[in-house]
Amino acid sequence: MILIILCILSKTQKYSTHNVMKKILALLLVTVSIQAFSQSDEEMIRNIYDEILSNGEAYQKLEYLTTKIGGRLAGSPQAAAAVDYTKEVMEDYEFDNVFLQEVMVPHWVRGDKEIGRIVNSKKQGTVQVDVTALGNSVGTGPKGVVGRVVEVQNFKELAKLGKAGVEGKIVFFNRPLDPTKINTFEAYGGAGNQRGAGPSEAAKYGAIGVVVRSLASGIDDIPHTGSTRYALNLPKLPAVAISTMDAELLSNLLVDDADLSFYFETYGEMKEDKLSYNVIGEIKGSEFPDEYVIVGGHLDSWDLAQGAHDDGTGCVQSIEVLRALKAIGYQPKRTLRAVMFMNEENGLRGGRKYAELAEENKERHIAAMESDRGGFTPLGFSLDMNDKHVKKIQSWAPLFKPYQIAMFEPGGGGADISPLKPQEVPLIGFVPDSQRYFDYHHTTIDTFDKVNKRELELGAAAMASLIYLIDKYGL
Amino acid sequence: MILIILCILSKTQKYSTHNVMKKILALLLVTVSIQAFSQSDEEMIRNIYDEILSNGEAYQKLEYLTTKIGGRLAGSPQAAAAVDYTKEVMEDYEFDNVFLQEVMVPHWVRGDKEIGRIVNSKKQGTVQVDVTALGNSVGTGPKGVVGRVVEVQNFKELAKLGKAGVEGKIVFFNRPLDPTKINTFEAYGGAGNQRGAGPSEAAKYGAIGVVVRSLASGIDDIPHTGSTRYALNLPKLPAVAISTMDAELLSNLLVDDADLSFYFETYGEMKEDKLSYNVIGEIKGSEFPDEYVIVGGHLDSWDLAQGAHDDGTGCVQSIEVLRALKAIGYQPKRTLRAVMFMNEENGLRGGRKYAELAEENKERHIAAMESDRGGFTPLGFSLDMNDKHVKKIQSWAPLFKPYQIAMFEPGGGGADISPLKPQEVPLIGFVPDSQRYFDYHHTTIDTFDKVNKRELELGAAAMASLIYLIDKYGL
Repeated sequence: MILIILCILSKTQKYSTHNVMKKILALLLVTVSIQAFSQSDEEMIRNIYDEILSNGEAYQKLEYLTTKIGGRLAGSPQAAAAVDYTKEVMEDYEFDNVFLQEVMVPHWVRGDKEIGRIVNSKKQGTVQVDVTALGNSVGTGPKGVVGRVVEVQNFKELAKLGKAGVEGKIVFFNRPLDPTKINTFEAYGGAGNQRGAGPSEAAKYGAIGVVVRSLASGIDDIPHTGSTRYALNLPKLPAVAISTMDAELLSNLLVDDADLSFYFETYGEMKEDKLSYNVIGEIKGSEFPDEYVIVGGHLDSWDLAQGAHDDGTGCVQSIEVLRALKAIGYQPKRTLRAVMFMNEENGLRGGRKYAELAEENKERHIAAMESDRGGFTPLGFSLDMNDKHVKKIQSWAPLFKPYQIAMFEPGGGGADISPLKPQEVPLIGFVPDSQRYFDYHHTTIDTFDKVNKRELELGAAAMASLIYLIDKYGL
Repeated sequence: MILIILCILSKTQKYSTHNVMKKILALLLVTVSIQAFSQSDEEMIRNIYDEILSNGEAYQKLEYLTTKIGGRLAGSPQAAAAVDYTKEVMEDYEFDNVFLQEVMVPHWVRGDKEIGRIVNSKKQGTVQVDVTALGNSVGTGPKGVVGRVVEVQNFKELAKLGKAGVEGKIVFFNRPLDPTKINTFEAYGGAGNQRGAGPSEAAKYGAIGVVVRSLASGIDDIPHTGSTRYALNLPKLPAVAISTMDAELLSNLLVDDADLSFYFETYGEMKEDKLSYNVIGEIKGSEFPDEYVIVGGHLDSWDLAQGAHDDGTGCVQSIEVLRALKAIGYQPKRTLRAVMFMNEENGLRGGRKYAELAEENKERHIAAMESDRGGFTPLGFSLDMNDKHVKKIQSWAPLFKPYQIAMFEPGGGGADISPLKPQEVPLIGFVPDSQRYFDYHHTTIDTFDKVNKRELELGAAAMASLIYLIDKYGL
């Protein structure tokens, strides 16, 4: 299209054919230089895929991390075990350097039991409801909290009700994920503030507790946890999520039964910060050892289940990237790091610490990639960087076509790598298919059996291929 | 790129700038005419997606078909029930015309039990092994078949062994699917002849039975059935599949234990052909009622499980295409048909009958689409048609970009629509992500719970969008 315009322009502006020719040649050169890769890259990427699809170890490492260690919320014994385990795995792979970064993390514990019920409903009397406390939330203790329920879809509706409509009540945030969004992360983003900021918004108007519709893609019977953030100077309300199915039930019962109440009892408690670690394995660069290309996931997970797709897969994929490049005998020019970040779920302390130390140690980061959207079939990458860098990465797209990787679009990188942004590090989010992610996210069913070996491996192979190209050509 | 070349050519051939300009304008016109769609198409496709993602009924219809009716091998009572059910569903949707096409189908029955074991193994003595008779295969009866085992990877190895190495033995075909193929259907294709033609190949050299490694993507403990085709004039050998895990075990035991035997007992029987039906629902075309655009799947499935991904999903998606277009008030120009083909699995009689009647009734088919690769996240379409038609469909690709549908490539259509090829009907295969398909394919675990609602719906929406464009613009 550019050329068409150029041709037309050159004609209308009565350029000489000589000039037109020069411009065409210049453009041809640009075209050639944009496709800055060679046949050896095709072969290398084929090698990467063959290695990972034939001899991949990510799946078996994930099995251990999820089924032997399990849920690993920051500060928990399981999180400590995961630190030890991934360090050992990378040491066994004989990466050049495996080390820990100390980081103080918040230490929230859920407590032993969680109880919820709809009470006094005209149609159904008392109905037991599975609840899960929102991460970081305060518990009710054995007295529980009980109150009439006021249902809202969003903060605007809440504000409209004001103190008169909300005081002394339990606020029920019931905005579903928009099913018409193709990318479920967009739908999640559109509903997420109910959980993150809902409790403090409700506190402004004197509510006594909060019930949030789970941030799930569909209608199911599992409550989804996730962190809430209390605003300063407002009462900290106890808050729980209920399943989308129970949210529909509660909403239906409320239609002509405004007097029903909701009771819940939780025992969440924020303890003192605890020492934990980011875990880093690296392969030293042969030409530019002081330049870093990193790939990571977060090692912590919610406590409810095994943290398989969130984010065990991202961790084992990141390790697999380095393992596979080493296994096929690739000598990186730059120093490659696999980084297991600690505490993404309820604090992001690990990501912040990593960026802080990178700055302190004047480590020049060429690029940072994160895998934290599940271990599903890869679609491509989301690029948070300047246009020049985006174009350079897009110029490699033909190399990925045989592997059904087509997405190289501007977009977000990832939570853990986001603190590197002020240092102008190009950030890359690994993007797998998103359709199943919010079925499992932050629930008891985010388990190893939900991960498909080939999907996990194809993701690792796509990640390794892009890391290889960035290492070889820079950005 | 074409333009660049044209510019250069026109220069070197000393065309006048006037001529160059004319060519550019001509090419611009081509470009415009290639993008033969309008903003209203964008809106229509958005409507289709919104309707299916918000009000889709495919998932609930699939639940009934798979969990209430279950496995529906041609000739079985369940196949008859599936005919009744899908007819009723389409009648309830008030399609303009719902009718059956009579078709005589083979009627193979598995029998009540299947037994397998490795016997006399030095290391492990007798080992029970799950076996599943290959579809269409003869049973051994209560005497079973027992013999020493000769393992081969392919027919070439078998021929090399010849009568001397094979006679009186059980041939064990143990070629795995190639894990390095990105598209698992390619890997399946590369291993498929062991099951389809293996028993007759083994019969050529006097074998007494056949054991086939399951055509599965990974290592699991489930045997996968599927049809075999006996060649004329050769003994019909009983034949079973074993899981990939057991295939690995058997192969390992054989390494230094060539004397071990395998025993199996099956009761498969091919009975007399039975009357069954293709089920067809149609919405009449308003402008060209005698032109047909069809979309289908196959209603029969293997008997082992619920036939969810193979091919319950293809059936309910095809019905959903018509339901959704009707629901949003689209009046097709051409007659649209949803076709439930009978007997794809072990005979293809339904597909053949449909093509035969289409020819007999001089029905002009503009295009035929099939969904028979599972109900996973859609990638695009595989196009079996002439270049002109391929290019026309590819010109619509930008309309699909917001929906992450990027594949519009030449390739196979589908088994059931393939008999329409001699009538020069453009054939379209719906292509979903293939990674999980051969985990479930032809096994006891091809069940409803393996289907994700959104993935199923996104497939139906992609199919409906392409059917809409073909109806509107022709091919």
